[in-house]
Parts: sequence; structure tokens; C-alpha cells
Amino acid sequence: MSLLVVGTVAFDSIHTPFGKVEKTVGGAATYIALSASFFTKDSGIVSVVGEDFPHKTLHELKKKNINIDGLQIIKGGKSFYWSGKYHEDLNNRDTLVTELNVLADFNPVVPEQYKDADFLMLGNLTPAVQQSVINQMSRRPKLIVLDTMNFWMESMPDELAKTISMVDVLTINDSEARQLSGQYSLLKAARHILKMGPKYLIIKKGEHGALLFDSKQVFFAPAIPLEEVFDPTGAGDSFAGGFIGYLDKTKDISFDNMKRAVIFGSAAASFCVEKFGIDRLLEVSEEDMRDRIKEFINLVQFDIQLA
Amino acid sequence: MSLLVVGTVAFDSIHTPFGKVEKTVGGAATYIALSASFFTKDSGIVSVVGEDFPHKTLHELKKKNINIDGLQIIKGGKSFYWSGKYHEDLNNRDTLVTELNVLADFNPVVPEQYKDADFLMLGNLTPAVQQSVINQMSRRPKLIVLDTMNFWMESMPDELAKTISMVDVLTINDSEARQLSGQYSLLKAARHILKMGPKYLIIKKGEHGALLFDSKQVFFAPAIPLEEVFDPTGAGDSFAGGFIGYLDKTKDISFDNMKRAVIFGSAAASFCVEKFGIDRLLEVSEEDMRDRIKEFINLVQFDIQLA
Repeated sequence: MSLLVVGTVAFDSIHTPFGKVEKTVGGAATYIALSASFFTKDSGIVSVVGEDFPHKTLHELKKKNINIDGLQIIKGGKSFYWSGKYHEDLNNRDTLVTELNVLADFNPVVPEQYKDADFLMLGNLTPAVQQSVINQMSRRPKLIVLDTMNFWMESMPDELAKTISMVDVLTINDSEARQLSGQYSLLKAARHILKMGPKYLIIKKGEHGALLFDSKQVFFAPAIPLEEVFDPTGAGDSFAGGFIGYLDKTKDISFDNMKRAVIFGSAAASFCVEKFGIDRLLEVSEEDMRDRIKEFINLVQFDIQLA
Repeated sequence: MSLLVVGTVAFDSIHTPFGKVEKTVGGAATYIALSASFFTKDSGIVSVVGEDFPHKTLHELKKKNINIDGLQIIKGGKSFYWSGKYHEDLNNRDTLVTELNVLADFNPVVPEQYKDADFLMLGNLTPAVQQSVINQMSRRPKLIVLDTMNFWMESMPDELAKTISMVDVLTINDSEARQLSGQYSLLKAARHILKMGPKYLIIKKGEHGALLFDSKQVFFAPAIPLEEVFDPTGAGDSFAGGFIGYLDKTKDISFDNMKRAVIFGSAAASFCVEKFGIDRLLEVSEEDMRDRIKEFINLVQFDIQLA
């Protein structure tokens, strides 16, 4: 196993200014694994669903070379369900329903053949579950990437701090970076957070792009200006999936290659938001990806010769 | 005359989370001309102040090769005065006081030697005053850049639309672009606005950078992540000044050169916010500018070879 992805696999009901969709397939691990599958052909999921989860989606995941031996299917159980409504500007949303269902008692079990994965992507989950997965690995992965959210910062800061101290890359959004560090300046926030353990920090700013920090350098990737952002659900997870999928494909964790990975992650996220749920991710071709990367290059390329 | 700058020259009282300053020199034309003076050595201002305006500042402008023959000094008059307080996040501010004073009856008179300027920068002012300046030119400048704001969109949309139709480049912020176009997507907003007359549109997004559009291309320049944004007043004007100053210096209005100009404008803005008012702009050296441009290059440079 080359890339192990941990996170929710779930149902979402989503309401945006452009429409509504009821109980579509979502979940952090779903978006991450699908986006990573543009790049890597050897990945697996650790997660849990109920008996209500559609076989069709399981089949689609397998078709994308995503191993689901670590996806527990709980007999008689119901899958995690989230429902939310986005504001007009799409930058804010209200959660209408959260039903943990089978996630409430989720005890992740990493299958034997996943335990030596080179790359480990921990999608948003309780910090304790994320730690449990790290502890089950037979050897330290080359790179562990952690995604988390403000909810855990507020409800279990100590558990979260411990998980953060165990990983190499943390991905959070700008308001979470400010909350976690108590610093308004993102530069100061990054410096603070890198002292908590991770060697790298990615601050996701949605339509305003993403920043990659290590202790000495900073790299900025814009978001592609889109005709229409249809549904932002899963954009951050798609970003993370493209990022780690590209790193897994290239097996190069230098800062220069991480910059490329951030661009590929941004491309994956830019596709994700073009349709509801995972629909767009399922149809993106290699040519679509190449064209989107060209757009990124054109968007930021300038030529200034300094004396 | 190579570059003509029109706009306010004024006093500002500014309250930010980092401190307060009373009646410091400000005004759109002041920031624009000072930032342009990094690049061009032949510029002049058309504006108006009262007798209360400090001789020291007039002297500083002249030292930067900014001609002030077109700066009317009204005997017994008081200079335009604005006072505002920024919110904690620095992205929003409340206006506490606006005293038009001598600006209320401002009738711009373009001196004879300014009338053939190659570049004309119209800082934020009533659309009628901006038109009056365009109409006084003895020949059409190579490039006219217009800055404006939401206040004119609401209070005199028709006058403003006429002014917009007369210029080559419009610079506004993202919420103004959405307001002017009625479109949320900035790509759609840009398409709408470019139909109103200008060949180019620059959307300023503050700490999130700036976008340059023509009818076919889009370019994105990030803002440098700063340790501390001390005072955002004048950042947009400094951006515009760096932009047009660089174009005036190079006399090249191709899209590729405008991309460079956007980077130099972003650099000027990044200096502006580091101290209160115009203080930082007055002290920036050529070496500071070169170092800042290097930071921009490092910030966005990535190398992806597409098959």
C-alpha cells in the first residue's frame, strides 16, 4: 500500500444558491481518495459506513484503484449524515443536521497490507481516532498529513495538540490558523503552529488560494477564478487529496515538489466545486487536468528580470 | 509631463488595532504620486488643499520629482479631512468624519505643461471632476487608469458609467466589482465590466492579492504575507501608483508588461501598510524594492513541466 486515507465516508444534503441535493455521497475520505486517484494508483481507505451506503459508490471507488478492505460496513447501521446550507457568498454555511450514526462508535482498524503505507492522509475526524491510526502503522510513514477543524480546537484542544505533534503537514483554513495560534498575521500564525510539531503548514483560503509554509519559506497558490462555484463541499478535502496523491506518485517530499503538489491539489479542488458532491471528480479526465494546470501557470506567470 | 495624477491631497486621522494617528498627511493623489515616484521621474499632481497643508510635505513631494504646479492652495481654506477606525481584522473600517472643506468646490485646472501627459491616473474623486480632467487634455493619453469606489456607484451611477466608458483601465475592489456588475463570480463580473468600456480591469482584494483582466486573459498577483499590517490606509492608491508609475517608466502597455506593473504595484502597497500614513513610502529604497520583488518571485514560482 502506497497511500492510506482515513476519514469519513458519508451522506450529505447540500443547499447552495444554485440548487439542492439530498443525501448525495460525500465525506472527507471519499473526496480525498478520489482526488488522489488522479495521481496515485495504489491507495486504500480506512473508514466506516452503514448498510445503507450505495454499492454503486463502492464500485466506483474500486474502479479508481481505491482499496476498500479497510472500509467497515456496519450491519443494520446508518452512514454518517451531514446537512448544510451555504450563504449567498458561498464562504459561509450553516450546519442543519449532523447524525454521527455508525461514526459514533468508529474504531478504525488498519488492514495488515495498509500498515506500511508511505503516505498517510488523516482526514478530519476526532483526534483520538487519527492517533489510533498512526499508532497502528508498522513503520513511520514517509509523510503524514493531518486535516482538522475548529470544532476540535474548541472541544478537545489537548487531544488535538497531541495529534498535531505527531504529523508532518497540517492543513487548516485561515480562520482556523488564527484560532489555533492566537495570531492574526498568517505569517506569525504559521510560525506559532510550526512550533507545535509539523514541519509544514498549509493554510487553505478557499477562493483566495492556499499558502504552504515551512520554517524558512512560503509559497502561495491562487485559486482559479471560476465561472461559477456550484458547491464548495469537499473542496478542502479534494485539495488535500490532490496534494498527497501527487506526492505519493512522485515520492519526492522536497519543498519544491510540495509546491507542485499544492498546485495539483488546487486543481483538484477547482474541479470539485464545479458540480454537486463528488460528481465532477468522477468525470475529470487527464486532459482536463492538464488544461487546468496550464491555466494555473498562465494565471501567475510573470517575468521580471532583476538587476 | 509624462504622468499626471489626479486625486485628493488630504489629512487623515486613523485608528487601527496597533495605534492612532491624528491629522497625518494622506489622500489618494499623495499615495499614488509617491508610489509612482519609485519608477517615474516626471510626474505632476492636480489637486486642491487648504492653507493648513504643511509646507514640509509639499517639499517632500518636490524632492521625489513630483511637480505640484497643479496643486491649488486655497487661501484661508481647510484641506479635505477624513477620519476612520479599522476593525480588528483590518478588512473593514468605519468612517468617523468626512469634511470635504476645499474639495467641495474643487474645479480641477490642468496646467498647460501637463496636458500632453502620456499616462493619466484618476484617483478616487467625483466622476464629474475625473471627466473634466480627461476633457482638458490636449491629446488622448496613451493610457487612462481610473480608480473609484462604491459611494459613486450608489450616489451617481450614470455619471460614473460615463467616466468608466472614457478610460482604459478600471481599478476597484472585489465587493465593488460585484456591486457594479451584479455578478458574484469575479470572472463574470469582469466580463460585464469590460463591456462598459475599459479594455482592462484590476480587481483589488487587499490581503488576498489582485486580479488583472482583459477580454481574453487573467493574471493574479498575490499579496506578500506580512508580519504585521499596521495601517491599510492608502494601500489601494499605492498599488495604483506603483502600477502606473512602472508603465510610465517602461512605456509598454502590453498585457505582459501590465502583469509586471501589477507586481510592482503590489510591492508598493505592501510597503505602504507597514507604517501609518505615507511614512513608509517616504523611506523605501531601491534595494528594499528589489528585495520585495524577489519575495514575490519566490512566493509564486513553481516549475511544472507538462507533457
